Amino acid sequence: MGGTGSIGIDSTRLKINAVQKERLYVVKLGSAVLNDEKALEECLQQFADISQQKLLVHGGGRLATEMALRLGVPQQMIHGRRITDADTLQIVTMVYAGWVNKKLTASLQAKGNNAIGLSGTDGNLILAQKRENADIDFGFVGDIKQTNTNLVQQLFSQGLTPVLCSITHNGDGQLLNTNADTLAARIAMGLSAAYETHLVYGFEKEGVLSNTAEGESVIPFINRERFYRLKEEGVIADGMLPKLDSAFSAIADGVQSVIIGNARRLAQLVNKTAGTHLRNE
Amino acid sequence: MGGTGSIGIDSTRLKINAVQKERLYVVKLGSAVLNDEKALEECLQQFADISQQKLLVHGGGRLATEMALRLGVPQQMIHGRRITDADTLQIVTMVYAGWVNKKLTASLQAKGNNAIGLSGTDGNLILAQKRENADIDFGFVGDIKQTNTNLVQQLFSQGLTPVLCSITHNGDGQLLNTNADTLAARIAMGLSAAYETHLVYGFEKEGVLSNTAEGESVIPFINRERFYRLKEEGVIADGMLPKLDSAFSAIADGVQSVIIGNARRLAQLVNKTAGTHLRNE
Repeated sequence: MGGTGSIGIDSTRLKINAVQKERLYVVKLGSAVLNDEKALEECLQQFADISQQKLLVHGGGRLATEMALRLGVPQQMIHGRRITDADTLQIVTMVYAGWVNKKLTASLQAKGNNAIGLSGTDGNLILAQKRENADIDFGFVGDIKQTNTNLVQQLFSQGLTPVLCSITHNGDGQLLNTNADTLAARIAMGLSAAYETHLVYGFEKEGVLSNTAEGESVIPFINRERFYRLKEEGVIADGMLPKLDSAFSAIADGVQSVIIGNARRLAQLVNKTAGTHLRNE
Repeated sequence: MGGTGSIGIDSTRLKINAVQKERLYVVKLGSAVLNDEKALEECLQQFADISQQKLLVHGGGRLATEMALRLGVPQQMIHGRRITDADTLQIVTMVYAGWVNKKLTASLQAKGNNAIGLSGTDGNLILAQKRENADIDFGFVGDIKQTNTNLVQQLFSQGLTPVLCSITHNGDGQLLNTNADTLAARIAMGLSAAYETHLVYGFEKEGVLSNTAEGESVIPFINRERFYRLKEEGVIADGMLPKLDSAFSAIADGVQSVIIGNARRLAQLVNKTAGTHLRNE
């Protein structure tokens, strides 16, 4: 029970903790999957079956665009980003934090997962700031300043599965529309200190394709060097670019691995037997 | 340290707990207040200033009706209850759980309250069943079966202020539209075992009026007997009836007091210097 003995025990414990970090999957679902009832059902069942800690992230862009059309609110996209005026902010908040978030949560509850749907304003989970850009006014678009991962860990300890939509706030009462891919990466980065964190982007394609015209031309592994080459060659472009940028930032900042692939094969993505795996070498 | 001594200590503790129950305010905001920016701001500031445990409950019927009109979804009300078809369920979920819930939460965050917006499906907070009625098909309307107040207590212990909208679920993946007055009463009843619970209905009038044409004719106290008499005389009618029915059920089932009055005077309602107070005598 002497001083030295105690230190010995403590350092052993620390070592064990470092080795045995609990595994966590942060799964981001793409907008096309959310709009395809059958694909969504398959994917959510596989998500519900993940026995490790997990967290679901979503937006709902396609449904928001449909709703904007029905409400007569014109939508403008620049570099794949939605210009978010006041009317559009209301629509994305209604669709992401309301309809999509609660449908996903209720569906997971039915599958035996005690899901809890949240936005970034809930429990001050994700603090953002309005994007300032001299050339383009993006409107109420938020860039993430801080993630409150303590709350997520408390929810895990209560047996809850967080379902997180991409609406954030600035702390002064303003809601903001944040890119869901980036949000998933930032939450994964924040949690990687406490968990062995794997980030999964589930969408409608099989992975990163070497030929976008061939759905089966999946590139199984991409490291940073190859990413730069593929970018230069124009193989990786459009919506895939910010996703991979976020992914490599996440890996550089503690996330163990990133997998990109078909949300309907979520179990295989988690087992790394499908999709594109990103490596930090 | 003998057996008898331990029993003595335990029963003393129980007694102290019973006497010193922490106070809790369950505040339900009416739809007209939610649609009046100035009134809402005043009311939320007073809510934020409540130093005891507290929980906010809301629906958002007026905004839902406006949204339904814009989307061309006809609305039908029977006995003050909204017939909730599939399109209407989507609208109320978007409006209550999305826009209103996140705006209220962000506003409370700005006022220094660590608010967390939730629906009844989140953490299985409120389990309901679809209303079956031989005469009227109410659609996706839910009657409450069970409230999970353990989760609410855990959130309190984490320093969080729950903001609860009136969307519930049936546990089988179906979202349901539930009356917000009833929901507030049921949550208050559920929490009254652990807290000295006061239920406040904040709306656009000064309280229960003896003459609905005179806004100042507030009845300061109503007991159960007087409630039956006022009902018979037709003084209490329409939307006030289910509110008072819920209120007297809540008092009968452990809630300490119910106060009904102007949401802009929330601090006075809490101090019992304004509004109508319901007593169980």
